[in-house]
Amino acid sequence: MNWESQLQKPLSPKDGTAGIERPRALAEQISEDPNPLLTLSNRHVVSARQFDRDTLTQLFRLAAQYESTPALMHLPLQGKILISAFYEPSTRTRLSFESAWHRLGGDIMSITDPKSTGMAKGESLADIAEMFNNYGDVIVLRNNQNDSVYEMLDALRIPIVNAGNGIDEHPTQAMADLYTIFKWHPNLLDTSLAEAERIRIGIIGVPGRMRTVRSLLILLSKFASAISEVVIISDEDQPFSEGQETELLAAGLSIRVARSLNTELPALDVVYINAIAWVGDSFEAMGSELRLSQRSPLKPDAIILHPLARGEELSTDLDNTPHNWYFAQARGAVFIRMALLTCIVRRISEVMDTP
Amino acid sequence: MNWESQLQKPLSPKDGTAGIERPRALAEQISEDPNPLLTLSNRHVVSARQFDRDTLTQLFRLAAQYESTPALMHLPLQGKILISAFYEPSTRTRLSFESAWHRLGGDIMSITDPKSTGMAKGESLADIAEMFNNYGDVIVLRNNQNDSVYEMLDALRIPIVNAGNGIDEHPTQAMADLYTIFKWHPNLLDTSLAEAERIRIGIIGVPGRMRTVRSLLILLSKFASAISEVVIISDEDQPFSEGQETELLAAGLSIRVARSLNTELPALDVVYINAIAWVGDSFEAMGSELRLSQRSPLKPDAIILHPLARGEELSTDLDNTPHNWYFAQARGAVFIRMALLTCIVRRISEVMDTP
Amino acid sequence: MNWESQLQKPLSPKDGTAGIERPRALAEQISEDPNPLLTLSNRHVVSARQFDRDTLTQLFRLAAQYESTPALMHLPLQGKILISAFYEPSTRTRLSFESAWHRLGGDIMSITDPKSTGMAKGESLADIAEMFNNYGDVIVLRNNQNDSVYEMLDALRIPIVNAGNGIDEHPTQAMADLYTIFKWHPNLLDTSLAEAERIRIGIIGVPGRMRTVRSLLILLSKFASAISEVVIISDEDQPFSEGQETELLAAGLSIRVARSLNTELPALDVVYINAIAWVGDSFEAMGSELRLSQRSPLKPDAIILHPLARGEELSTDLDNTPHNWYFAQARGAVFIRMALLTCIVRRISEVMDTP
Repeated sequence: MNWESQLQKPLSPKDGTAGIERPRALAEQISEDPNPLLTLSNRHVVSARQFDRDTLTQLFRLAAQYESTPALMHLPLQGKILISAFYEPSTRTRLSFESAWHRLGGDIMSITDPKSTGMAKGESLADIAEMFNNYGDVIVLRNNQNDSVYEMLDALRIPIVNAGNGIDEHPTQAMADLYTIFKWHPNLLDTSLAEAERIRIGIIGVPGRMRTVRSLLILLSKFASAISEVVIISDEDQPFSEGQETELLAAGLSIRVARSLNTELPALDVVYINAIAWVGDSFEAMGSELRLSQRSPLKPDAIILHPLARGEELSTDLDNTPHNWYFAQARGAVFIRMALLTCIVRRISEVMDTP
Repeated sequence: MNWESQLQKPLSPKDGTAGIERPRALAEQISEDPNPLLTLSNRHVVSARQFDRDTLTQLFRLAAQYESTPALMHLPLQGKILISAFYEPSTRTRLSFESAWHRLGGDIMSITDPKSTGMAKGESLADIAEMFNNYGDVIVLRNNQNDSVYEMLDALRIPIVNAGNGIDEHPTQAMADLYTIFKWHPNLLDTSLAEAERIRIGIIGVPGRMRTVRSLLILLSKFASAISEVVIISDEDQPFSEGQETELLAAGLSIRVARSLNTELPALDVVYINAIAWVGDSFEAMGSELRLSQRSPLKPDAIILHPLARGEELSTDLDNTPHNWYFAQARGAVFIRMALLTCIVRRISEVMDTP
Repeated sequence: MNWESQLQKPLSPKDGTAGIERPRALAEQISEDPNPLLTLSNRHVVSARQFDRDTLTQLFRLAAQYESTPALMHLPLQGKILISAFYEPSTRTRLSFESAWHRLGGDIMSITDPKSTGMAKGESLADIAEMFNNYGDVIVLRNNQNDSVYEMLDALRIPIVNAGNGIDEHPTQAMADLYTIFKWHPNLLDTSLAEAERIRIGIIGVPGRMRTVRSLLILLSKFASAISEVVIISDEDQPFSEGQETELLAAGLSIRVARSLNTELPALDVVYINAIAWVGDSFEAMGSELRLSQRSPLKPDAIILHPLARGEELSTDLDNTPHNWYFAQARGAVFIRMALLTCIVRRISEVMDTP
């Protein structure tokens, strides 16, 4: 049997994207500056809008250090408690945050069964926030209502991190997306790139109803100097929510909508694809035209990103190709969350020299 | 938007009840004596009846030290494992115990889904107890059957803490209630108070069917010298269970039943209110007459306690008034549980000088 | 009341099987040799077939050291993360593994609600494996499909431990079974036992459809020199799966099938009994003839093993007799898992001198 031989050999990393060379190169590209990170101390993280370019760049640097230098981790969060509150179930994002927190030495209390909670019994979000104040040091919240995280802010005295609120935002996922792009090409952080050196990014999805895409576009607009164009590939006539396109254009992002995936693919350097878009309480899969596989006309050196879990829109026949950066993206998400959580809990001085 | 300004400002404690002055004053009021606490080593905590005045007072002192001196915590429970077994789901009480345990440095294994357990498959309580013996150092159990915790005692070789058993008892909640009262007025611990200095406590609820009230009344009877009267405010003709009133009177508590909340309120120093009373497997909310709001005729310096979560019986318009001690009560519950758990696990010598 | 007196007295171990004398005697019987354990570094544990006699013997020795010398535990797994993935719910096995991991100093992320996971949403096992690679250091998996653990192997870069896959195997339970037998009589490890010194083992169950029995028989075949005969006691005509009996006979195990429990009992030294056998997605309890109680014609010094939880097949009237080694078996399971996990995570050098 096949598995018997597999059990004979020791395990080892499968590909270069899980190695330490790329994060090390990214860390070396960025000059260390603790000041932007110090502003994150004891602050909520709700929207991608809260972050400026300098802060994001320093977060990428710290994440890259965590990823390339495991010995950096002196358990800076020892004695700190994370409340991991997933009122909308999600194994993947929950484990990513919890792994980040544990690797920093902290303890965790998880809420994974919405039906067993006060929220199910009609307790107000303000009362739940007040409860969390007493029991933990940071909250990570996922909820299927756009407003829930905002409604808790007034009552909170400990920071909250938005891990997905309805169809609104998912800012740490977007940070992981950008962290992956800059690990792929650290020079994209250069603010004086010639037009020819900039990248064209395709996003297969509906910006108006996909929280990952919404947050990603906001963060991309902070790095407009690296991007020649963002192409939204969608089979909807109006893929944006109200005001969304205007905001992105005002921020300097060149953005265009297209319908035909295969027409655009040959010119895209980064292809971001997502599984589903929410319509009310239900969701719809992407149309069957909007799928990627080895047969897709990808540029030879294009990379594919996907927040996972995937459906039929992303064929597994791409997994063993150099286009596969979605696994590296999932891996990197742990390190960017480590960087962010370290800053929020005011332990940045334990991993960096601070003024 | 309102939340955008909230995201700009750093978080800070909102009110004095979360500060360290009051617990420090309480700790200074009590002479340190480790001996009563040493008797708790490796003991079950099932009923409020098990505790005498001296032991409770020393627990309040240790809790106040934990609350006012975070540096006191040298992680005395490192390497110890809590089995957090909530066969009746409860986010609030579970997180309170788990936060207490984590803050002392211990690890936790949680049971939050009753349907996935052996108990659901018909395994006996004795076999479950035997299982717990092998896997943990302390059990915290919540169960909707009065008898369950008692049925496990014979098989247990590790201590168990009753976190609510049906309509019977919830002793650590009652400890948190009294801890709050003594933080409010430490001088109530004085055993030679004149009648005029004693307080009148109103309890809105049904002592016969509310486990929090049952345990609270037992603990109040240990501090009868501080209390001029306990007034049970209920719309039931017979709010006590069999023998309950007799036991409390015999313990020296002056106790009286009343029907009209607003008639009693002007003379009450402490008003304890609870949400629901159990009737068999169902529950009933308190009558609509038995509600508190800013319009209630409260004494200006009266405090309100509530074990939370709340329903309509306690208006949120009281949250920002000096009557609100229910949030301080929830916060203090973590520290009293830390004190109790430290003693049970025989680690009191790590936080106090012991003979 | 009975429980009031129970609350007065401090807790203490109830019987000798929970003491340290027997594991100490077992550890002293075995010469320390780290080499077989070093081969387990970073390896999957899927089947009992993977283990040879020397490796098992050294695991028993290390488990016995853990059980008899609590001070041995220098938290060798500090900073390591276990993904405890119980897609088939099981409180007992989950807590046993989690307790083992915590006692070694590691952190844990649990999946206890299959309905909230990607697997429920149709995510592939390969994608789940890839996710686990990023978030943890070891996976413990229970799943009700035989094939699931095998299907994850190709994608995994971190080790996985099979904690029960359908009706196929449960290798660590079998290790706990043998560890118990050798604690009972360490001399059974002697390879030159005379026939009269060997033991006769009865297994009440269906080897073809009970994963615990399947793994146990494989491990017993590695210690055939200690066994005069294994008697399978079953009311089925063909209790084996295809090829199972042939494999065991080829490995040197003397094996026989019998129908009448009470006819065999007087000649059995070890009686292993299990609760249920799986038939498709359902299960069947053992026949009413196949039950043990104080009335059963057991040899005076026979021991009973049961993987627990039990049903009616094992009477509680045996609990306080010397036949009861099933509680010691459950206790020992924690220590054998500690030994195995230490080796897999390559931390054996922290608890043994290694070359």
